[in-house]
Amino acid sequence: MLDELREDVLAANLELPARRLVTLTWGNVSGIDRDAGLVAIKPSGVSYDAMTAADIVLVDLDGMVVEGSRRPSTDTPTHVALYRALQQIGGVVHTHSTWATAWAQAQREIPVLGTTHADLSPFAIPLTRALTDEEVAGDYEGATGTVLIEALAGRSPLESPCALVRGHGPFCWAGDPADAVENAVTLEQVARIALLTTILEPGPLLLADAVREKHHERKHGPGAYYGQES
Amino acid sequence: MLDELREDVLAANLELPARRLVTLTWGNVSGIDRDAGLVAIKPSGVSYDAMTAADIVLVDLDGMVVEGSRRPSTDTPTHVALYRALQQIGGVVHTHSTWATAWAQAQREIPVLGTTHADLSPFAIPLTRALTDEEVAGDYEGATGTVLIEALAGRSPLESPCALVRGHGPFCWAGDPADAVENAVTLEQVARIALLTTILEPGPLLLADAVREKHHERKHGPGAYYGQES
Amino acid sequence: MLDELREDVLAANLELPARRLVTLTWGNVSGIDRDAGLVAIKPSGVSYDAMTAADIVLVDLDGMVVEGSRRPSTDTPTHVALYRALQQIGGVVHTHSTWATAWAQAQREIPVLGTTHADLSPFAIPLTRALTDEEVAGDYEGATGTVLIEALAGRSPLESPCALVRGHGPFCWAGDPADAVENAVTLEQVARIALLTTILEPGPLLLADAVREKHHERKHGPGAYYGQES
Amino acid sequence: MLDELREDVLAANLELPARRLVTLTWGNVSGIDRDAGLVAIKPSGVSYDAMTAADIVLVDLDGMVVEGSRRPSTDTPTHVALYRALQQIGGVVHTHSTWATAWAQAQREIPVLGTTHADLSPFAIPLTRALTDEEVAGDYEGATGTVLIEALAGRSPLESPCALVRGHGPFCWAGDPADAVENAVTLEQVARIALLTTILEPGPLLLADAVREKHHERKHGPGAYYGQES
Repeated sequence: MLDELREDVLAANLELPARRLVTLTWGNVSGIDRDAGLVAIKPSGVSYDAMTAADIVLVDLDGMVVEGSRRPSTDTPTHVALYRALQQIGGVVHTHSTWATAWAQAQREIPVLGTTHADLSPFAIPLTRALTDEEVAGDYEGATGTVLIEALAGRSPLESPCALVRGHGPFCWAGDPADAVENAVTLEQVARIALLTTILEPGPLLLADAVREKHHERKHGPGAYYGQES
Repeated sequence: MLDELREDVLAANLELPARRLVTLTWGNVSGIDRDAGLVAIKPSGVSYDAMTAADIVLVDLDGMVVEGSRRPSTDTPTHVALYRALQQIGGVVHTHSTWATAWAQAQREIPVLGTTHADLSPFAIPLTRALTDEEVAGDYEGATGTVLIEALAGRSPLESPCALVRGHGPFCWAGDPADAVENAVTLEQVARIALLTTILEPGPLLLADAVREKHHERKHGPGAYYGQES
Repeated sequence: MLDELREDVLAANLELPARRLVTLTWGNVSGIDRDAGLVAIKPSGVSYDAMTAADIVLVDLDGMVVEGSRRPSTDTPTHVALYRALQQIGGVVHTHSTWATAWAQAQREIPVLGTTHADLSPFAIPLTRALTDEEVAGDYEGATGTVLIEALAGRSPLESPCALVRGHGPFCWAGDPADAVENAVTLEQVARIALLTTILEPGPLLLADAVREKHHERKHGPGAYYGQES
Repeated sequence: MLDELREDVLAANLELPARRLVTLTWGNVSGIDRDAGLVAIKPSGVSYDAMTAADIVLVDLDGMVVEGSRRPSTDTPTHVALYRALQQIGGVVHTHSTWATAWAQAQREIPVLGTTHADLSPFAIPLTRALTDEEVAGDYEGATGTVLIEALAGRSPLESPCALVRGHGPFCWAGDPADAVENAVTLEQVARIALLTTILEPGPLLLADAVREKHHERKHGPGAYYGQES
């Protein structure tokens, strides 16, 4: 069970360079086994080329290493804070992907400009508030989790599957690690098209509400008719 | 005959990721057998890596499934609306390709800024009007076909081979599925160069009429001399 | 001799898709045998994947086909006009490469903003004047050659190895086809960096004259010390 | 020992095209053996495809060739000036990478806009002053080294591992050639995200000081906890 989780988390991490979401060793994916209360996460600063399932570290929900000889990702306290607060999620991804990070650095949420975005989420991609100096000096990575949860403003994490950490970059989540990576891929494309749209039309010209809701509903709502029946 | 159509439609769909026009499972291509009155179209939400000719769905001109175990693309009602209205076309493509989608989201038609565009069409790439809330709530995908046909404003679909759905993305068409994909490839490049041109010169500085017509005529007119004699 | 020229022209044409300078069948390269007075050029509208040396067409300096079963590139009259006027050149390339074409469509010459440009040419990349309606209606492709030569304003074609056809795209030339392609690769990169520079600094902030001359001289001047001694 | 240095310098040079930091033969990497007082550097204008360890040239700290049949990189006097002035560095890279060169041509330092930058350096990426006409006419490449050292303004070269030569392009350095290339890869990504950020928000909105320092410290400071323990 945990071996399978480690394999899934490894595969999801290897998708990051394959999808061109990361440079060098940046970025990390985790997955959780809710029954065991354990999170499998990428080791810190290890090359994707050389990574094997044995490098994936198991930590508990306080971020303490339970199994593995590697040091877990520096961002582990952010991942476990998200798992503690958001019971519906089973996978978390963090990257510095180019276009989403540009929005994070511009300190702007990504408005809903088109149906590509509405297929991912019916809401703007939120931006976290600035951390206080105390939060940075203290448990910096844990506080990053706190502001991500605040940014959700009580919305379902599956309807608001990504957020931008101000001045930093995106986090995405989903029911499992593979879907979290798919959300990260989609977010990057949404961020890219939105930035190019903004060059043409600084407006922003928001997508009409009816179309925004329709696209989200036809893919994710109770009467969804996108994809094959499962 | 229908087997060949399915193979052609499969091959045309596989060109979309190969030409980097799609992310994940987004985008779809269809082709029609006018004699049989049947349209072959991509299944909804199926990975391009795993797709075979058996996954291609046959529907009639009302969009009802005639053959195939898969659910057809969500956009099927748009495709069949185009085939019903435009007798000259034999293939339709829809993508969320990056640069064309940026123009669609900026809610701007693409003006004729250069000969690359004039080689594709002597007209601006039109933008559909906004759907009414009633159209969105009702037969949303069928209404998308309606506004695409309105956007053509009576021009020949072979002279105006692409249009942008407002806030959504491009549709292209041609005599067969392969040529429709070629038009989608060309549109994406036209959209990209046009956006970069607009950064340098917001004008827009339209291409001189004589050159615009010359380029279209030398490639597509009665005395065309581009390409090999067929 | 002519067989070798055909092979060189084929190889230079195949560099265009390899270097991502062309989409579909756009773009063409030619080379000349000055002794024979014959130009080898790409056939019109033939896929790069399928092209062989036998497809390369031989034409005389009036653009009449001397050998080959294919129709030569539509742009052949432009190529032969350049060879007739510019005795020093042995190869010509035309593309619709993305970033150079954006400058052509913006109807702006590319100013010398950095040493990358100065390594290619000490001059701005010139822009042709608009063609008259008469020129477009008459020998359009020949007139394109005429305005390219006018754009050189008497400068050596080896010091001014590229020019932009207004609303169309770039032409480059050099002593042989391979070097002409190398100039087209360099121009595209120069055009790209210049456009990105212009986003940051619309100025333009021209490169200091002394540096501009130094870079051109150290690579191409009589005391050049870039590269290996030949 | 020197054979190993040559192999390391070759491998680091080959990373430049692999990481898409160079076009054609542009760009060069060197490494130093401090005990021998010798620098291994790329030959000038040689294709990366054909380069072997035997092509790597050994020069002394005055830039005089000690071993090798090739002419060393034109930029050799800049490299040796850096090694003479900065005792902590063991590798130097110069490229014309697209996005960093755009900042150099815009004659602007790259401000610290996000944590991706802070992970590389806690400081803006500095820009060299303009060379005087005398410096250009005299030892141009040596003077380029002089202004790079001036741009560091006394900061540690390992904390300020890259700088932009005005109107030219970036230089990066590190403890060895491989790490210098890694810094060049990171700089290019930092420059790209910063330029895209600037499109959205011309501000610039600087990263909060506390976060800027935290990110640098957690990766490079005395209590660093990024990566595996060495």
